[in-house]
Amino acid sequence: MNRMHVFFYDKSIAYTGHQLSSLWAYRNFGLQGDSLVCFRGPCSVLPTEMVDVEDVLDGSSIYGPDMLHFIVEHFGESLEAGVLRQRLLMAIIKDLLECPDLKRDGDDLYIGDGKLSISIATSSPVSVMIHAALNIVSEGTPVKAAGLYDLGYSDGRVAELGIKAGHLYAGEMHSVKMACCKVRGVK
Amino acid sequence: MNRMHVFFYDKSIAYTGHQLSSLWAYRNFGLQGDSLVCFRGPCSVLPTEMVDVEDVLDGSSIYGPDMLHFIVEHFGESLEAGVLRQRLLMAIIKDLLECPDLKRDGDDLYIGDGKLSISIATSSPVSVMIHAALNIVSEGTPVKAAGLYDLGYSDGRVAELGIKAGHLYAGEMHSVKMACCKVRGVK
Amino acid sequence: MNRMHVFFYDKSIAYTGHQLSSLWAYRNFGLQGDSLVCFRGPCSVLPTEMVDVEDVLDGSSIYGPDMLHFIVEHFGESLEAGVLRQRLLMAIIKDLLECPDLKRDGDDLYIGDGKLSISIATSSPVSVMIHAALNIVSEGTPVKAAGLYDLGYSDGRVAELGIKAGHLYAGEMHSVKMACCKVRGVK
Amino acid sequence: MNRMHVFFYDKSIAYTGHQLSSLWAYRNFGLQGDSLVCFRGPCSVLPTEMVDVEDVLDGSSIYGPDMLHFIVEHFGESLEAGVLRQRLLMAIIKDLLECPDLKRDGDDLYIGDGKLSISIATSSPVSVMIHAALNIVSEGTPVKAAGLYDLGYSDGRVAELGIKAGHLYAGEMHSVKMACCKVRGVK
Amino acid sequence: MNRMHVFFYDKSIAYTGHQLSSLWAYRNFGLQGDSLVCFRGPCSVLPTEMVDVEDVLDGSSIYGPDMLHFIVEHFGESLEAGVLRQRLLMAIIKDLLECPDLKRDGDDLYIGDGKLSISIATSSPVSVMIHAALNIVSEGTPVKAAGLYDLGYSDGRVAELGIKAGHLYAGEMHSVKMACCKVRGVK
Amino acid sequence: MNRMHVFFYDKSIAYTGHQLSSLWAYRNFGLQGDSLVCFRGPCSVLPTEMVDVEDVLDGSSIYGPDMLHFIVEHFGESLEAGVLRQRLLMAIIKDLLECPDLKRDGDDLYIGDGKLSISIATSSPVSVMIHAALNIVSEGTPVKAAGLYDLGYSDGRVAELGIKAGHLYAGEMHSVKMACCKVRGVK
Repeated sequence: MNRMHVFFYDKSIAYTGHQLSSLWAYRNFGLQGDSLVCFRGPCSVLPTEMVDVEDVLDGSSIYGPDMLHFIVEHFGESLEAGVLRQRLLMAIIKDLLECPDLKRDGDDLYIGDGKLSISIATSSPVSVMIHAALNIVSEGTPVKAAGLYDLGYSDGRVAELGIKAGHLYAGEMHSVKMACCKVRGVK
Repeated sequence: MNRMHVFFYDKSIAYTGHQLSSLWAYRNFGLQGDSLVCFRGPCSVLPTEMVDVEDVLDGSSIYGPDMLHFIVEHFGESLEAGVLRQRLLMAIIKDLLECPDLKRDGDDLYIGDGKLSISIATSSPVSVMIHAALNIVSEGTPVKAAGLYDLGYSDGRVAELGIKAGHLYAGEMHSVKMACCKVRGVK
Repeated sequence: MNRMHVFFYDKSIAYTGHQLSSLWAYRNFGLQGDSLVCFRGPCSVLPTEMVDVEDVLDGSSIYGPDMLHFIVEHFGESLEAGVLRQRLLMAIIKDLLECPDLKRDGDDLYIGDGKLSISIATSSPVSVMIHAALNIVSEGTPVKAAGLYDLGYSDGRVAELGIKAGHLYAGEMHSVKMACCKVRGVK
Repeated sequence: MNRMHVFFYDKSIAYTGHQLSSLWAYRNFGLQGDSLVCFRGPCSVLPTEMVDVEDVLDGSSIYGPDMLHFIVEHFGESLEAGVLRQRLLMAIIKDLLECPDLKRDGDDLYIGDGKLSISIATSSPVSVMIHAALNIVSEGTPVKAAGLYDLGYSDGRVAELGIKAGHLYAGEMHSVKMACCKVRGVK
Repeated sequence: MNRMHVFFYDKSIAYTGHQLSSLWAYRNFGLQGDSLVCFRGPCSVLPTEMVDVEDVLDGSSIYGPDMLHFIVEHFGESLEAGVLRQRLLMAIIKDLLECPDLKRDGDDLYIGDGKLSISIATSSPVSVMIHAALNIVSEGTPVKAAGLYDLGYSDGRVAELGIKAGHLYAGEMHSVKMACCKVRGVK
Repeated sequence: MNRMHVFFYDKSIAYTGHQLSSLWAYRNFGLQGDSLVCFRGPCSVLPTEMVDVEDVLDGSSIYGPDMLHFIVEHFGESLEAGVLRQRLLMAIIKDLLECPDLKRDGDDLYIGDGKLSISIATSSPVSVMIHAALNIVSEGTPVKAAGLYDLGYSDGRVAELGIKAGHLYAGEMHSVKMACCKVRGVK
């Protein structure tokens, strides 16, 4: 009953949406089982790769020149439970950033009217997958953005943030599981 | 696909643990379906009513002279999904309090080393039930506590907090459901 | 805890089987969440689009020159629950038609030996999808058919039937949900 | 993949609510697995035995001097699927009665404003249980009732109705299961 | 994603059926989460404590003067999955015993016509519970029994068997989980 | 509540991985519902057809010149339950072979260091699918193998083994279902 895998990959990966497919962490990093992989890189998702039909309908583009990415996979899980976990991941990141102007609205983080994050959760045939990413730079994005550099984060602290968020998330997921193993039922 | 019931009961109820049973909101307030009921009152749970076996084993007592209570019920749900929702409720309350010293640790809120909250989630035969409560006064509690009065909350703002937290939680639960209805699956 | 979307589209759509895919109602009509969409149009499903392997094996063709169609989507649901709902939809339509010679046999409606309806339920990666359709004209179909015109339905009453069936179905689905929120468990 | 048990017990049983508990059919008739048991007898449920909290809140009494009862049990099933099955049972009974004035409203059958039936579905720790019953006589009931005698049913035809409804229900449950085993998934 | 708890308790416990309740391992040994506890002791279950209604109906008594017991708990699990795990536990024990005359028939182990084991799986409100036990001595049992002493087991080897079976079972449960985290879906 | 289909096909089929797709038994043999189909033939799976990503990552090839195959399908089931059933299938085959040197390690059977079997379980959109196969000849395989001929099996006994294993598996699956229908819940 130990924790899920948490892995920070220290080379750049260009996020294209292809990473949001089952067993990506297993195929690429040998991580078998529930996992969170964090890495840094640009983000550019072609409309054909978009899984959020809301974005497709809105004609939104998903683009960021430099982002901190999280790919999470939970096996044998309903999409709704996956979305609940995704929201907790965003709440954990929000708390870590310790920025009074930061607001969480569902799976989005905002600083004032600048959008700090993007995120989506969906189903694969064997698991639930979450992608969440934080802007590091706030220029060059399709909507008004905020970035970690704006909050004074250095590259080193960006990496630390990813690692810390990953471990806090894994810890919370473990404690959620444990919370189910200490109560008696009620009438 | 509208929201769950949110109800603020403006008379005092002494929380004894008996409220944590299925259909409590339906029996008492006619609320049929998923619901969050908020009320204020003292809290004193006899060991025989405790559902958290960790507390029973630790010999903890669950007591607070004046607390803001939330009783939440979700039907047809697994306990694990209920615990995930409970965590989001605590994250929502934390954000509402806008207190830089406030920390969420799982289902607990702390100000420094003072415990602001208690919470538990469990299963009934037909639903998942959550109890969460915030100390209003910080004296007379079995462990070092923090209370809403310490944060400068007036009685009026305590009530407002309960109502606001309830509506934000209901809104988040609705948006979680909607988030499952806008994505295509991935491979 | 409100009702699912019910939408009558008053222009003709040629049903080809492509409509039986997840988020069709959301992509085309902006209906996010559980939905029933009703429309009128011809029906012609290529063997490559057939989801009922029984039809494929039998070499059946799915064709009707003019039909009243229902596309239903329920999210986060098992296929078996989807089939149970499909059967209730057919029972509701049968009752609405108030025709003593009408018989329901599973998901089929017959008037004598004339087949009035076609229907299928299947799984998408995020939902369960139902297609049901009633012949309006009874000629030009691959098997002996009965049609709503044979029952004396005018075009206006055909539309009314679709709307009424949709709302009764949505009402029944709501009452099924509510029925789960008013009972205590038994031993 | 054969059908559930269908058993008509030809002696009178007084329905008291105690029959609505898991394994009743197994304990009393040796029927192991999903089952429908039909019998005739008076009905009188003490408030302490009522599982429908709506009835408890309304102060309704559940009473009928002579009824045709169905006790159904499905193992390993959600309550919502149980309620969907219950509704289909009522639709099957309605169709069998072939009475133009008969209306189904959820789990209730009415002839005009006379209530012909009572029904409830709930969860046991290992199964979902359904009780449905039809008035045979329409006098002596707490609300305005209709009875099978009013529809011209003889005692022999009452028994036949029970047996026929049981077998049609078992057949429909089997065909629901088979309908899940003949479709390919869609996108 | 580590293994479930495996614990061998080296003092005698008289098995009475009361041990087959949720959180028994947590309450008694502090083991939070999925667990297997093995111990030795007599076995005597009062009819009121029996969970196997088949035994109750048959008037069987559950008694053994000296047995090796396993109590297993898996949280958040269906009863059917619990029974599948129980069968694997019996298959593991059978293989460990390396006795050519030993046969597994469902959840029972036999040597010739001597019954070596008893076992049951059932649901608690929060978990699935399994009890399995092997006769150590074969006298004094209600049916013709076989015992580990008959197979030449010393007391030391009895204990070893319990520990080894526990670890093999935990390993198999872990490998079952991992087997779900390495496959792509098929059409 | 009868048993799943068991079918021995007495002509050779070359296993290519394409057989591991939903409704294969229904499309080819008209078997609707849960099924086990046994046949004999060579085995050669192209990397593009492999569902076990572990094999893909290892660069394993799946090849055997002559094998006894089992294709099993269970509808409406989680992958984890499918893997548990797969393990029981392997345990049943092991017991049938009555060979003291045979060891089961998860879903693999070994005689000494010779691999007797291959197996995989995965999800389709509507079911869980299992492939298991036993080498008949032990030459020409990519890893050191053992075969049924090595155990002295004639062609006739190979066929008998397939039929017997199929029926024992179907019987065990039935008894697992029945085991869920004879217990009361515990606290």
